[in-house]
Amino acid sequence: MSPLDMLADVVGPRNVLQDASDIAPYAVDWRGTWRGQPLAVARPGTTAEVAEVVQRCGALGLAIVPAGGRTGLCGGAVAPENGPPSVVLSLERLNRIRHVDARDFSIVAEAGCVVQAVQQAAAEAGRLFPIQWGAQGTAQIGGMLSTNAGGIRTLRWGNARELVLGLEVVLPDGRVLDDLRRVRKDNSGYALRHLFIGGEGTLGVITAAALRLVPALKRVESAFVAVPSPDAALSLFSRVMASGAELIGFELCARFCMEMAARHGVGLRMPLPLEAPWYVMVEIAAAHESVPLRAMLEEALAEALEGGEALDAVIAESEAQRAMIWKIREDYPDCSRREGPAVGTDTAVPVSAVPDFVNTAERELKARWPEGRMAAIGHAGDGNIHLSLHAPEGWTDRAAWVERAAEMEPLVNAIAVSLGGSFSAEHGIGQSKRHAMATHKNPVALELMRAVKQAIDPEGWMNPGKMLP
Amino acid sequence: MSPLDMLADVVGPRNVLQDASDIAPYAVDWRGTWRGQPLAVARPGTTAEVAEVVQRCGALGLAIVPAGGRTGLCGGAVAPENGPPSVVLSLERLNRIRHVDARDFSIVAEAGCVVQAVQQAAAEAGRLFPIQWGAQGTAQIGGMLSTNAGGIRTLRWGNARELVLGLEVVLPDGRVLDDLRRVRKDNSGYALRHLFIGGEGTLGVITAAALRLVPALKRVESAFVAVPSPDAALSLFSRVMASGAELIGFELCARFCMEMAARHGVGLRMPLPLEAPWYVMVEIAAAHESVPLRAMLEEALAEALEGGEALDAVIAESEAQRAMIWKIREDYPDCSRREGPAVGTDTAVPVSAVPDFVNTAERELKARWPEGRMAAIGHAGDGNIHLSLHAPEGWTDRAAWVERAAEMEPLVNAIAVSLGGSFSAEHGIGQSKRHAMATHKNPVALELMRAVKQAIDPEGWMNPGKMLP
Repeated sequence: MSPLDMLADVVGPRNVLQDASDIAPYAVDWRGTWRGQPLAVARPGTTAEVAEVVQRCGALGLAIVPAGGRTGLCGGAVAPENGPPSVVLSLERLNRIRHVDARDFSIVAEAGCVVQAVQQAAAEAGRLFPIQWGAQGTAQIGGMLSTNAGGIRTLRWGNARELVLGLEVVLPDGRVLDDLRRVRKDNSGYALRHLFIGGEGTLGVITAAALRLVPALKRVESAFVAVPSPDAALSLFSRVMASGAELIGFELCARFCMEMAARHGVGLRMPLPLEAPWYVMVEIAAAHESVPLRAMLEEALAEALEGGEALDAVIAESEAQRAMIWKIREDYPDCSRREGPAVGTDTAVPVSAVPDFVNTAERELKARWPEGRMAAIGHAGDGNIHLSLHAPEGWTDRAAWVERAAEMEPLVNAIAVSLGGSFSAEHGIGQSKRHAMATHKNPVALELMRAVKQAIDPEGWMNPGKMLP
Repeated sequence: MSPLDMLADVVGPRNVLQDASDIAPYAVDWRGTWRGQPLAVARPGTTAEVAEVVQRCGALGLAIVPAGGRTGLCGGAVAPENGPPSVVLSLERLNRIRHVDARDFSIVAEAGCVVQAVQQAAAEAGRLFPIQWGAQGTAQIGGMLSTNAGGIRTLRWGNARELVLGLEVVLPDGRVLDDLRRVRKDNSGYALRHLFIGGEGTLGVITAAALRLVPALKRVESAFVAVPSPDAALSLFSRVMASGAELIGFELCARFCMEMAARHGVGLRMPLPLEAPWYVMVEIAAAHESVPLRAMLEEALAEALEGGEALDAVIAESEAQRAMIWKIREDYPDCSRREGPAVGTDTAVPVSAVPDFVNTAERELKARWPEGRMAAIGHAGDGNIHLSLHAPEGWTDRAAWVERAAEMEPLVNAIAVSLGGSFSAEHGIGQSKRHAMATHKNPVALELMRAVKQAIDPEGWMNPGKMLP
């Protein structure tokens, strides 16, 4: 039997893709940045099949590249260009929701479930699965967990990690770690699951997860607020938090970002004229009908206007207006791409360091690339601001700008790290941030990571060329 | 230089306790269950001193037993009776609060800070450090994290683990893992901190932590509710959760427990006559003044009474009444001890399995020990019910009862595990649950734990004889 026949023997011939055209979608990331040719794509349909495929790949000397919805931004689910012979292990057929328990506020879903399908199943049970980000209609649970996805609700419910009750993982040698329990307290040994969550498939393949649900939201209020500075935005953040209103979204946006959205967005209407240097999108929510949410938001904003933290503010008067505010945020990445070439970052700093971070970065980018245009937008409530540097208006040669601004990301990373922050807040490392791991990662942490990798995947079969520098 | 002089050289002679009388308090746990004689107690005053002590102990062939407030229930901070020559490393002098940032909702505290001191520092900054349990006036931050402490607020804010933003750890070879960052999003590699949190000092010594604060509570309402059964209690739990009220406490108590509290408690007044088989203590809270908390609780309880989930209910009319409800809960362990000999457990099951768990355990305990009296009390909102079996009234010989009921804990553990639960929910393993690890821990998880231990502490210096079976 040929190596690929040995895999077909496990998952069926139809589920081992070998033709170039079938493999093609798995051989490149969705932005077209990362390319790498696997020998085949295996699509197991059960956890047992995943285990068998992994074991056989090990015996055959084939590396494993686990893949979910492949919406990641760091090339983590694509075979590396000059890597060892590898098989992409796509979890797409493990897409059953195994269990929903409304009374228990939990759901058990397989790795290949699309995130939105889990959100919907939770909603049908009258509950909320609270993670939310742009790619949720394509991203899968396994990828969400392997990258510890974030998004715009992190300040309230945490990253994907915080939503996990239990995990099922196929280890590099094919053993199954069955810890798919819905138990909320378990102090029986090392918290192994946290190695696989955010482990980017380098320690094993997540095949299913028991996830926490929360009470459905009954009321939501949003506002679009003009603020004079990042420092004022931070004061507003602290004010709303301290007021006790349940803050579920707090996005900081530079005027330039809103201008790009206004220019390139389809059907986007700005809630305020773009005359202020910075804007904030605020959302508060309540799970109980009787919380006077509107009054709470009005009061906080009135105080902010009086205290000079806000210059102007609009509270959404209807669901349509509320949806519009968040559509601006959601469509922003597309609008930004239409503006032309840019290089970007994904850093986080302590929330109280956001103003210092933004101001320092602005000054240093201006000094180094006076022709560039800095965009700053992000989850200020988590300290996670995505800075990018756009080419001058009319610039079309993407490669040239990427080369010219190649030092922008390392510079911004260094600023974030110097402020006690992270050079990779929510997107992960994959292939694209390995250089930053080498530069900025705490060397002791790096040694520990290598020791853990060696202990769990001594042969290095699992997603080689990712994460570890 | 003698070995202990080499430690005195680091921390000063006054901080290496060698006299039997000085060592005595560190050589036994507070319940007197676990005893073990260390060669000395070292009390370093800085992280650098901790690192140096750890390194020298390694060179001298001395094992390390990290110790905090030593309020643990599993003997984790006591040298094992027939263990290798060891030094208790007490963190008590690392007791500075390094940083409080109200705007950022964070606090950085050293391992030896008493938990209550951190709560107070947070309160002074107008914030809440939300973990809460009986021993908080003695327990220290390092122990809280090393055991991933739980308590009565876990259903709202999670275990200690969920409150950590960053950690500083001295590794078994004396290297310092400095990850004491206040950043809320960081996807740059394996989540190493989660190995040390709940790691019971077997992988390193936590020396400081950056911790998450939350908005201060402005309103709290509590009720004492008589319920007909654990199943009704669960329905009540689900009803209050789904209503959207912010549930911060939900304790289930068998009538026998309340009877013991009434009998032995000093100054305890029961809010209701003890005529129902089960009682629930409910607490809901709001961080915003304007949340109509009282009405929310009244409504939920009225519905529960109508639906037959509740038989009777009292809402606390004053802070004194509210304090009384929770004093009953807090004083319960003492009252229970005064009732006479008992053996206990610390299991958790999925929340929706609590009724099945309690009913099955009650039936099996009754069949096996018809003379015993089962007590059931615990954090039902987390599925963490502490079952114990009391000797018959008037029984005084503790050792005899412990021997007679020796199989109670394994039996209850097995029931919990069979329902997808944990045999160690919040107390940890230490020395007392190692037998349960051997029996019930998933063997693949155990193999992984050993691989991780070997990778990080290959010589086995750190807290030997704990956790791993």
